[in-house]
Amino acid sequence: MRTSQLKKYAKLLARMGLNVKKGQTVFIQAGLDQPAFVTMVAEECYKAGAKAVYVDWSHQPLGKINAVYRSLETLSDLSPWEKAKWEYKAKDFSCRLFIESEDPDGMAGVDQEKMSKARRAQYPQLKPYRDAIENRHQWCIAAVPGEAWAKKVFPELSPKKAVEKMWEVILYTSRADGKNPVKEWKEHNADLAARCAYLNSLGLKYLEYKSGNGTDFRVELNEDGIFCGGEEKTLKGRAFNPNIPSEEVFTSPKAGAAEGIVYATKPLSYQGQLIENFSVRFSGGKVTEVKAETGEDLLRQMVSMDEGAGMLGECALIPYDSPINNSGVLFYNTLFDENTSCHLALGHGFNECLRGYENYTNEECKAHGINDSMIHVDFMIGSADLSIVGITKNGDRIQIFKDGNWAF
Amino acid sequence: MRTSQLKKYAKLLARMGLNVKKGQTVFIQAGLDQPAFVTMVAEECYKAGAKAVYVDWSHQPLGKINAVYRSLETLSDLSPWEKAKWEYKAKDFSCRLFIESEDPDGMAGVDQEKMSKARRAQYPQLKPYRDAIENRHQWCIAAVPGEAWAKKVFPELSPKKAVEKMWEVILYTSRADGKNPVKEWKEHNADLAARCAYLNSLGLKYLEYKSGNGTDFRVELNEDGIFCGGEEKTLKGRAFNPNIPSEEVFTSPKAGAAEGIVYATKPLSYQGQLIENFSVRFSGGKVTEVKAETGEDLLRQMVSMDEGAGMLGECALIPYDSPINNSGVLFYNTLFDENTSCHLALGHGFNECLRGYENYTNEECKAHGINDSMIHVDFMIGSADLSIVGITKNGDRIQIFKDGNWAF
Repeated sequence: MRTSQLKKYAKLLARMGLNVKKGQTVFIQAGLDQPAFVTMVAEECYKAGAKAVYVDWSHQPLGKINAVYRSLETLSDLSPWEKAKWEYKAKDFSCRLFIESEDPDGMAGVDQEKMSKARRAQYPQLKPYRDAIENRHQWCIAAVPGEAWAKKVFPELSPKKAVEKMWEVILYTSRADGKNPVKEWKEHNADLAARCAYLNSLGLKYLEYKSGNGTDFRVELNEDGIFCGGEEKTLKGRAFNPNIPSEEVFTSPKAGAAEGIVYATKPLSYQGQLIENFSVRFSGGKVTEVKAETGEDLLRQMVSMDEGAGMLGECALIPYDSPINNSGVLFYNTLFDENTSCHLALGHGFNECLRGYENYTNEECKAHGINDSMIHVDFMIGSADLSIVGITKNGDRIQIFKDGNWAF
Repeated sequence: MRTSQLKKYAKLLARMGLNVKKGQTVFIQAGLDQPAFVTMVAEECYKAGAKAVYVDWSHQPLGKINAVYRSLETLSDLSPWEKAKWEYKAKDFSCRLFIESEDPDGMAGVDQEKMSKARRAQYPQLKPYRDAIENRHQWCIAAVPGEAWAKKVFPELSPKKAVEKMWEVILYTSRADGKNPVKEWKEHNADLAARCAYLNSLGLKYLEYKSGNGTDFRVELNEDGIFCGGEEKTLKGRAFNPNIPSEEVFTSPKAGAAEGIVYATKPLSYQGQLIENFSVRFSGGKVTEVKAETGEDLLRQMVSMDEGAGMLGECALIPYDSPINNSGVLFYNTLFDENTSCHLALGHGFNECLRGYENYTNEECKAHGINDSMIHVDFMIGSADLSIVGITKNGDRIQIFKDGNWAF
């Protein structure tokens, strides 16, 4: 990919993704796949006024070695220096940028029970920091090609060509392949905001999903719930774009109020392993049954991570006929696949999907129906014939999606 | 390079370099150049019994960006998480492995005065930890090819071929290109130990250096000084090899007792910038004059970092006709170039070069003549005609080196 275009993408992440404020600290989490690009992003953050940019590099094969050889006890411990870093972030409200590039099944074969236990043991150590920064700092998830990931998506190409093709599709889907990505994102955010405004004017109480694949499902929305999309704001009003790309309009439904069954329409890469051809059944708002052709045990572990892991945190609406989906590229990566398909998320919900959340504590948001969990995992349920009907507080039925696409 | 040979090299670093003990923690510092090899080393450390292996990845171009954009204040601060990591290392006496691969002049153009100030400001924050672990933990410096470094050494080759050639010369000079590198190192260590034993039997008080290039120099040795080489031991008796490769026999001379001038015979890469064709004059044990065709300001800053930076910490003896030197490869990297040439080091000395140092504190070692400084920088003075004469406590003159090689 041309350096000049990559610089535009780097600038997009610094200016629109994080919207770095003068004097802020930035933490970047990145694999080792595209160091030159990560360095560009760091420079763009400095140009935007960052005081310091720290990069935490990770390397999935090393993570796999660690998972194999370390004891559960050692894996469960949050190290003193990780703790010190979290303390710093929580005090400083530093920007956080996650640059994904990992192999969707690079952790295949790792003992998932051990890893789940380790994550469960780490979570209480992390939670106070996560709670402290929630809605208070700018963050963004974006992606760059890793070779193994590119080969998974484009198996017919040579590694070099697969990586180049991945750059193309990442920049295309991220609206970063044009002359002025920052300007394009401003327009895109305005579009999403208008769609949210319409949905929020309807006073919806339920969403009902139906598809010929077997999906037959109803979820209750929160009394003071709202739909969001695109740009978000920190509690102090600093705008940022948490996902690049992002095509979705989403809300956090009422935790513990969902009935029926949904069938996934794309594979899910969870913790570096693939779950494929699966369904999830809800009863009384909770997952009561999961089935999967591949990765059923992993899926079962996922929904049992904690109480909230078996309840919904998000309902997101994306037309089936999005240009990304029509390209036919399956990314095996949630950041992209979630933007091609209506999806649900198990686990943690979003406080900002409550009207007036600025005045609530995390506990109060939870009491208003926002789910709380250590996980937040999207899975895709969009299909060509998906119908979604909204039912208002007055009992009116309004077609939201028809044949997989917006009905309005 | 063949994976099977790289695995042998990885094992050498874990078993002979660090000699990891069951239950120990290992910290690896590495560039992004050879992640697959670093992962192999981590696995070998686990196989040797490590409880946890942590890799701190670094990326020189990012370091350069940081140096340019961060304020002196931000650069001077040891972050809370770095502090926490040092505290851990000092408590745990963790193994430390440094895997070098950087471009010898990758930091060219960076404001050296700013960087020197930052290092000086950081040092008092680091020193207590460095003092706490000194002689108490196993550590090792080794190298892998970085592309920019390989191109600097083999400018006539393509990047890919230069990297492959670098692997060859690194494994060759590191005695890691054979069937059983661990066995070869055991034999090598025995050889170096025999040479040290002979030198230590002579009761030397001075070393006098002379060469046709202008070097004319005398340094006083410590009353209870000894020569060391190859394998070292922690205070608790755990053997390790701090440098791979290592061909040198060395001692720490008496700080503040050197007279005359030495002419460098190889370029020096210091903090990512090159110093070339230089000389250093000592008077009353201290550097009183430096001259350099390239990098004179940087050299002057280096010897002024602190009081000890202008005094000697090491005298090392290596024959001019070593196979590495005869290969004609100039590495622009001290780890290699120091093993092809007699050299001196400005700055920090080695406590273990005092007989009975186990019974002394760091302060007592200093009082016995071991230099103390935040820097330790080797520079090469070996030449084809170098003569070194040892003068014993009784005034006898013994030829140690003649025409650049061992005289005995």
